Amino acid sequence: MSLEPVLARIDADLPGATDRLLELLRIPSISTDPAYKGDCDRAADWLVADLKSIGFDAEKRPTPGHPMVVAHGDGDGPHLMFYGHYDVQPVDPMNLWNRDPFDPAVEDTAKGKVIRGRGSSDDKGQLMTFVEACRAWKAEHGTLPAKISFFFEGEEESGSPSLIPFMKDNAEELKSDIALICDTGLFGDSTPAIVTMLRGLLGEEITITGPSKDLHSGMYGGPAMNPIRILSQIIASLHDENGQITVPGFYDGVEELPPEIAAQWQALGFDHASFLGEVGLSVPAGEHDRTPLEMIWSRPTCEVNGIWGGYTGEGFKTVLPSKAHAKLSFRLVPGQDPHVIRDNFRNHIRTMVPFDCEVAFHDHGASAASKMSIENTAFEKARIALSDEWPNPAAYVGCGGSIPIAGYFKEVLGTDAMLIGFGKDDDQIHSPNEKYDLSSFHKGIRSWARILDALSK
Amino acid sequence: MSLEPVLARIDADLPGATDRLLELLRIPSISTDPAYKGDCDRAADWLVADLKSIGFDAEKRPTPGHPMVVAHGDGDGPHLMFYGHYDVQPVDPMNLWNRDPFDPAVEDTAKGKVIRGRGSSDDKGQLMTFVEACRAWKAEHGTLPAKISFFFEGEEESGSPSLIPFMKDNAEELKSDIALICDTGLFGDSTPAIVTMLRGLLGEEITITGPSKDLHSGMYGGPAMNPIRILSQIIASLHDENGQITVPGFYDGVEELPPEIAAQWQALGFDHASFLGEVGLSVPAGEHDRTPLEMIWSRPTCEVNGIWGGYTGEGFKTVLPSKAHAKLSFRLVPGQDPHVIRDNFRNHIRTMVPFDCEVAFHDHGASAASKMSIENTAFEKARIALSDEWPNPAAYVGCGGSIPIAGYFKEVLGTDAMLIGFGKDDDQIHSPNEKYDLSSFHKGIRSWARILDALSK
Repeated sequence: MSLEPVLARIDADLPGATDRLLELLRIPSISTDPAYKGDCDRAADWLVADLKSIGFDAEKRPTPGHPMVVAHGDGDGPHLMFYGHYDVQPVDPMNLWNRDPFDPAVEDTAKGKVIRGRGSSDDKGQLMTFVEACRAWKAEHGTLPAKISFFFEGEEESGSPSLIPFMKDNAEELKSDIALICDTGLFGDSTPAIVTMLRGLLGEEITITGPSKDLHSGMYGGPAMNPIRILSQIIASLHDENGQITVPGFYDGVEELPPEIAAQWQALGFDHASFLGEVGLSVPAGEHDRTPLEMIWSRPTCEVNGIWGGYTGEGFKTVLPSKAHAKLSFRLVPGQDPHVIRDNFRNHIRTMVPFDCEVAFHDHGASAASKMSIENTAFEKARIALSDEWPNPAAYVGCGGSIPIAGYFKEVLGTDAMLIGFGKDDDQIHSPNEKYDLSSFHKGIRSWARILDALSK
Repeated sequence: MSLEPVLARIDADLPGATDRLLELLRIPSISTDPAYKGDCDRAADWLVADLKSIGFDAEKRPTPGHPMVVAHGDGDGPHLMFYGHYDVQPVDPMNLWNRDPFDPAVEDTAKGKVIRGRGSSDDKGQLMTFVEACRAWKAEHGTLPAKISFFFEGEEESGSPSLIPFMKDNAEELKSDIALICDTGLFGDSTPAIVTMLRGLLGEEITITGPSKDLHSGMYGGPAMNPIRILSQIIASLHDENGQITVPGFYDGVEELPPEIAAQWQALGFDHASFLGEVGLSVPAGEHDRTPLEMIWSRPTCEVNGIWGGYTGEGFKTVLPSKAHAKLSFRLVPGQDPHVIRDNFRNHIRTMVPFDCEVAFHDHGASAASKMSIENTAFEKARIALSDEWPNPAAYVGCGGSIPIAGYFKEVLGTDAMLIGFGKDDDQIHSPNEKYDLSSFHKGIRSWARILDALSK
């Protein structure tokens, strides 16, 4: 089966592929907010119908949360399992969007055409690159070059609570020769990247209770402890003057980067100044003796993702609140055990709360970091196929984000996973005005067609 | 004109007086939230109509904000100006109310009957004690024992932006022999109190901007500065290890209490343990070498009244936010200039913000502390009248809250002000389930009847 006509068909069908993606983007499948449960279900139905239309045996599979979509094709050869997620992040603050996040469109920008809308890059646009590659291949040759399966979840943006139980319950069906995951980005604008190292994620919510009820700050201000003051002391203390995290034992087991990987990263010529400059910053905020690229790809971090307490509306209210809250997350690297870190964090916080006040913790999920097995020959085949499509040769890179599915494929199913994606740093994923370059979408589809070809040989 | 029949009429008309208060409480006159502008106007109309029904020449007077209510009676003798405010605090968090805050009712409790609802104590219930005293006097004797005026505002809970301009524009009309203000409390359950010292209030809102937009914490966590981290460092640094405020020059001009006042306060037998114990606390949070009563009545403080930033909804979102916000207030004592302290605070904060991040300030009002002129003979007359009504003799006390109107009467009109009120510490003003004891309302009305009698002689 020849690759060239498949690529030509992909080029010709780009308008159709774009329309299909826009249809999927119109479904507001926000998994973290129960109000959108029905929309998550609709997105799963849409995918099942679309995969059936290409000849896949596709099913929506229930879970205690949002459903999975599992589909199997009729091809022969190596078994390739493609993973993506159809759920998206919340859209607030709405006022910063230049259009309705769920009324997507192709927009002309100074940097070229982009598909604008929530989920365009993370992960509906990326997910559809693989679907469209299969559609083109099937349309051109009547069959696929390999045994291809799809596995889409709808809870990736809310901690994937159903994922491991589902994988365990359906292990035989989901095992494959390699899992392909499209949820990452290019390096820069034109260097395709295969991720070989992913950070883990630990999410915690803390609630500090000071007085047993909201008080008048004129009547109690001074003698009554303000929980916002305690929470601020805790957050302020989590980084030391060198930018290191102060949770006891936090760096236990964290390894330095192997010199050859460090050298390869160095050679990528990452522009640290532009990376920060694009978001209006100039001073790296993390560990003082690390470069931003090291911080993102290979160092553990701690962020406050949300904080609230007291009166936050219009005007002013002289309240001394009873409670203050924060959502925090730790990005973890290989060698760190999320459960040990959670225990250490909670014990550390408890020592900072006055004995007449209280702290409560809420668990928002934990996943360890993962390292890929690049000894699997699929990695080198894919690297060469990607290098054929793009201006620059493909690179093995790290990733600051947490895509625990890669580790789960290995741990639960014994399957190696390969992460290849076409997002860009300016895609504004998780932010207002998310976009996916039309060129990412187009060349992403072509890239998968090439990788399918390479892996089938 | 005899006092006794007036007191008897007050006792007989308590059910009617209570019904009238409930009517006023049903109007949700939240001044800080523009959504309730029409309701503030309705509350003013209600007061005008009620005062007219007692024979006052009452008018609603427009301002750039919520209207004033001004009314004049037809009596002779000394001119007494009564001040109160018809606006109320916001009601969130709604889920902590045991009834609709604007569907008030008289409830039986273990401690006796209470009037439950937003504004029942602060300040509609208190304001109506004076109106009802006048109603009874007028009904009994056909006239009032003094020349009585009313001056009600609707912006007290949102910084009184229109108050000083209105007082200046209507200075001749508003001048009187003494201003009477009912917006304070009893000392304990049965000791009437005349406030001779009030703290001032300085309100500030700060917004820290880190990155120019919300970021993905996986992609930027580590190198990009998180504004919540800066804000927490700022808040954590505002108190030192002894509980003192660290803003430079904050204590300049703050005087120690005169020994005779300190001795008088000592004699009140304030129960510090119960004061904190009632709100679930046991460790005083303020200056380590001060008692809670000193902290509240005579020491300046700093509180965070609200904080917010990042994702605060259901679930979790791994955002690294662009902005973080806090509303802070300082309670000030005589000798402190609010404008100097605002400048010092802002300059101090600016030194704590990294040069590639930004801080913006929003002014939420400033008023200096005030000390009353107890040389005015009205103070001693009122003290004796109050002592006749209540089980314990009346005391001269301080007040932790900020009622800038007292200072304005002196500064703008040259009129001494006397603060007498019947609230209790457990009234939950500014909090869910605000109440006013029916006994506070009843004996409050009787107290004003006695004071009117005393001041007219």
